[in-house]
Amino acid sequence: MNTEDKNNIDEAGEVGLVHPQIFEYKKEFRMTHGVLASFQLYYETYGTLNKGGTNAILICHALTGDHHVAGVHEGATRKGWWNHAVGPGKAIDTDNFFVVCSNCLGACQGSTGPTSINPKTQKPYGMLFPDLTIKDMVVAQKLLLDHLKISSLYSVAGGSMGGMQALQWVIEFPKFVQRAMIIAATPQHSAQTIAFNEVGRTSIKGDPKWNNGNYTHDSRPEMGLAVARMMAHITYLSDEAMEEKFGRNQMKLSVEEEEQQFAVESYLHHQGLRFVDRFDANTYLKLTKALDHFDLVGENGLEHTLKNVEAKVMVVGFTTDWLYTPAQNKMIAEALQKLSKHASYLEIDHPHGHDSFLIQSDNFLRLIKLFLKGADQDEIARQEIKKSRYAITRADVKKEADLKVIGDWVKPNEKVLDLGCGRGILLENLRETKNVNGLGVDYDCDKATACISRGVAVYQGDIRKALSMLPDNCFDWVVFSRMVEELPEPGQVILDALRVGRRVAVSFVNHGYWENRLYFSQYGSKINNDVYRENWEKSDPRNHFSIKEFEDFCLAPESQKIPFQIGRKVFHRGNWKTTCKWLPNLRAGLAIYELVRL
Amino acid sequence: MNTEDKNNIDEAGEVGLVHPQIFEYKKEFRMTHGVLASFQLYYETYGTLNKGGTNAILICHALTGDHHVAGVHEGATRKGWWNHAVGPGKAIDTDNFFVVCSNCLGACQGSTGPTSINPKTQKPYGMLFPDLTIKDMVVAQKLLLDHLKISSLYSVAGGSMGGMQALQWVIEFPKFVQRAMIIAATPQHSAQTIAFNEVGRTSIKGDPKWNNGNYTHDSRPEMGLAVARMMAHITYLSDEAMEEKFGRNQMKLSVEEEEQQFAVESYLHHQGLRFVDRFDANTYLKLTKALDHFDLVGENGLEHTLKNVEAKVMVVGFTTDWLYTPAQNKMIAEALQKLSKHASYLEIDHPHGHDSFLIQSDNFLRLIKLFLKGADQDEIARQEIKKSRYAITRADVKKEADLKVIGDWVKPNEKVLDLGCGRGILLENLRETKNVNGLGVDYDCDKATACISRGVAVYQGDIRKALSMLPDNCFDWVVFSRMVEELPEPGQVILDALRVGRRVAVSFVNHGYWENRLYFSQYGSKINNDVYRENWEKSDPRNHFSIKEFEDFCLAPESQKIPFQIGRKVFHRGNWKTTCKWLPNLRAGLAIYELVRL
Repeated sequence: MNTEDKNNIDEAGEVGLVHPQIFEYKKEFRMTHGVLASFQLYYETYGTLNKGGTNAILICHALTGDHHVAGVHEGATRKGWWNHAVGPGKAIDTDNFFVVCSNCLGACQGSTGPTSINPKTQKPYGMLFPDLTIKDMVVAQKLLLDHLKISSLYSVAGGSMGGMQALQWVIEFPKFVQRAMIIAATPQHSAQTIAFNEVGRTSIKGDPKWNNGNYTHDSRPEMGLAVARMMAHITYLSDEAMEEKFGRNQMKLSVEEEEQQFAVESYLHHQGLRFVDRFDANTYLKLTKALDHFDLVGENGLEHTLKNVEAKVMVVGFTTDWLYTPAQNKMIAEALQKLSKHASYLEIDHPHGHDSFLIQSDNFLRLIKLFLKGADQDEIARQEIKKSRYAITRADVKKEADLKVIGDWVKPNEKVLDLGCGRGILLENLRETKNVNGLGVDYDCDKATACISRGVAVYQGDIRKALSMLPDNCFDWVVFSRMVEELPEPGQVILDALRVGRRVAVSFVNHGYWENRLYFSQYGSKINNDVYRENWEKSDPRNHFSIKEFEDFCLAPESQKIPFQIGRKVFHRGNWKTTCKWLPNLRAGLAIYELVRL
Repeated sequence: MNTEDKNNIDEAGEVGLVHPQIFEYKKEFRMTHGVLASFQLYYETYGTLNKGGTNAILICHALTGDHHVAGVHEGATRKGWWNHAVGPGKAIDTDNFFVVCSNCLGACQGSTGPTSINPKTQKPYGMLFPDLTIKDMVVAQKLLLDHLKISSLYSVAGGSMGGMQALQWVIEFPKFVQRAMIIAATPQHSAQTIAFNEVGRTSIKGDPKWNNGNYTHDSRPEMGLAVARMMAHITYLSDEAMEEKFGRNQMKLSVEEEEQQFAVESYLHHQGLRFVDRFDANTYLKLTKALDHFDLVGENGLEHTLKNVEAKVMVVGFTTDWLYTPAQNKMIAEALQKLSKHASYLEIDHPHGHDSFLIQSDNFLRLIKLFLKGADQDEIARQEIKKSRYAITRADVKKEADLKVIGDWVKPNEKVLDLGCGRGILLENLRETKNVNGLGVDYDCDKATACISRGVAVYQGDIRKALSMLPDNCFDWVVFSRMVEELPEPGQVILDALRVGRRVAVSFVNHGYWENRLYFSQYGSKINNDVYRENWEKSDPRNHFSIKEFEDFCLAPESQKIPFQIGRKVFHRGNWKTTCKWLPNLRAGLAIYELVRL
């Protein structure tokens, strides 16, 4: 190692020099579709396990990844594949956590797989290696963690195939895992993904050198594997990212040749060639089959599969990921949320497609850090809240007026769905004071991230979609804190909330307030104040309504398709502090209603 | 042919039995990258050419398509690939039009290409066939049309590679082509599309049987070609369509074998195998290279390439097409619109991805028919308007109030951009009465289709995006007819309109109308009438404003970044008929303003 490398690994925030280790399991290991007489796993660890064995984080790698997550190997310069995320003071902080990653069972970077020697034949297993499953990988990892004396996992984390392993972990060992970060994953492969994999497999098997899997190191199906990798590589990147990186740039193939090649063509060939050097064709066949057959939905549905999960789960999708789309990631969180588990869904706006999880991104790293910190409310979390683009304004102070009232209505241990939850203040407060189990919904990624920093489960997305996916009667309360005005056809949304929750709390600005009326009758214009902050030309469209209009809606026969009645109601005057008893439609600035399903 | 087939082809609406014909061009033909001593094209025609030779429609086929568009061949049962679109009484009506389609130059279904005999060597050209371009295909087609005594093309039409040919046609022969339908196409391949093609080519060239292109019929690179086709086939379908068609369904490979296969895998293998029977590997290499190198943007930009276009162009994208995306299709229409050409963009909501253009779809076929009919206003067009989900209501009658005023302001031969153009009534009227060249913008596909039926050029999409793509000062008028209320931050949109047009006409409901004020001051609620039709709970959010608020905005220093003044203004009373002179902010129901950039 030269001096520069030495400096490199000693610098602050780096785990430094690391050595792969070998775990040998010398007993028979029953896989889903076969038996191994024994197996081994290559793995690395970073940080120190605490005495209780409770500060471990397991990282699971993707299809073609390996155990080398962080730091550098002796004599090498390449850092681990998640080096920017794992290290002292980094998002996964090795000063606090003991981090483990193993090359998964069936892979080809040191763990037992198709390239290993089959004790029966004394030749490599090749295609005789049992058909793998994601569950096999997870069960083998558990044996490693037992060997390392880890008593429970503080968290498991992984992207892509690693995310599927993380998901399998919380199903297989629900009491062992406290948290799970499932990133850019899916509960099952779509037909399109299976199709892409099958084209790759056809290319490998169509290469004459594949020879039914019985190739030697000197005559491997390199062309078939390279084509498979080239194609798969396209699915890892977004259209936008490729366009930005390559566009239609051309390059000369060589000085002698006149032929031009697009830069993207050259890049793909390079990817294909590099891959065949480090990967094995039979392993690729086995691993892609394991992915295609991974199916947590099956005949009984995802909720059935996830019913025993106890971990706090955060699912993260990337906007431009078209391999494991945001919608597929969301399915996982939604199923857990339907089961009233502590589960969040966040969507990071990142241009790099599926591979975004491998690329350094401040928003993503902050999210990981905040999720691992949980509700610690440390300095970072506070900074987080300050950084949020919704700064504290007079209107934000006003906001707490309705949250106090609604918070008082909720009883201990009830379940609360907060639609338009913002930074999660209500739900955090209810958890701290009343042990309330809550779920927030907000469209904004910054706000959803602030919820994570408060340890509040959050669904980043559209309120109407969140409501429509939730089953009947799965919450005690559904809260709309001053956000009904933003919705198209809001009446239907309120009725849907009454399906999902027994009680619905709606707070709104009473548009019928006397000052508004006076101003409008005089000038014909909307008043301009704390509540109506912008002139029409700078406003987003709104559905303003009054107390009278709200009650008319509640009492209309059409609204009573789901029978409900108005319960408690609280009116505040224009200052949003003093309550107001009589003539509320004229005198109240803020109205808070409880609707109770009958 | 058996009786059933005979019946089949004689049925109403079918072109019946057809025979491919051969056009031989016996002179030297200069291609972009080489010379052919002669060439031939296989082609078919349907319908009859009129005496002037002016009723011909040329159809251009896609990458792996051919000249057999409609009807059946002797002894065959398979109908042409666009049989549902072409025939007597069909969207492309062979009772009125003479329809021509040729297998393109360089293809392998009878036209001269890599499988043809090279007169110099007396062997197939193979890879020695000159590198093809889309332009070569079009120039060869023109020689065929000259041979057929076609004096001008009523229309050219094509999807995918056919759309690129149609686009090349209006560039290459601007005076020869009156109309062009460019469907699911792109002005240039993206890096991602080039990448997919390059993987396919690598698979073919990696097949040892390819032998640098010197294969014989008995030993063709079938495996390489099949893999290329399988992969490409995935890009022709949408994720949703594949999911719906196959999902994760499994099937047994054979009774003997225990192995299961996903249905989508089996389907893809079938596609790959069928393809190698009918297609040639070298041809695939040459055609995909022609596509990758097709680039109408180049160094000087798409507008430069399209500057001489005279045809009326309709570009059609499909929502789920991820190969040639709606955005890529829109680029073509936008460039033409920036040049003030008669060009429309429509987006059909179809689930089948890129291949949607090959699949029977009523909306799409209606659009083709209406575009070809133009402004004929025949029975179908009238039905079209009736069918539109925006039926004639009292509010629609009211609508004409502002259109009459704005129509009067526009002078003959001016250029008008109508934002939120609805069914194109204003622009049709201005074209008929004042020879006005107009472009409508509307988000709604039904309304945009109604514009096509009126012969009005339309951009289906977001008003703000349409405005932002248009260059400064490219219209005399920009019209907002009662739609500003629907926009977020509408002030900025109006200012952008003043950049694009010298004059802006804005009509709006005066929210300060006395009845509104009286009602609101009394009840605190929005009045319910013709203008405010729905209660809050069924409304979309709106930015209502008054005459005073509008004028305040116009006069604000911030608005005057683009200096403009208020020109003419017309106020109508509550009935929207009688004009109103004094106290408009109180007495006017409708306001129409002219803003003039200084």
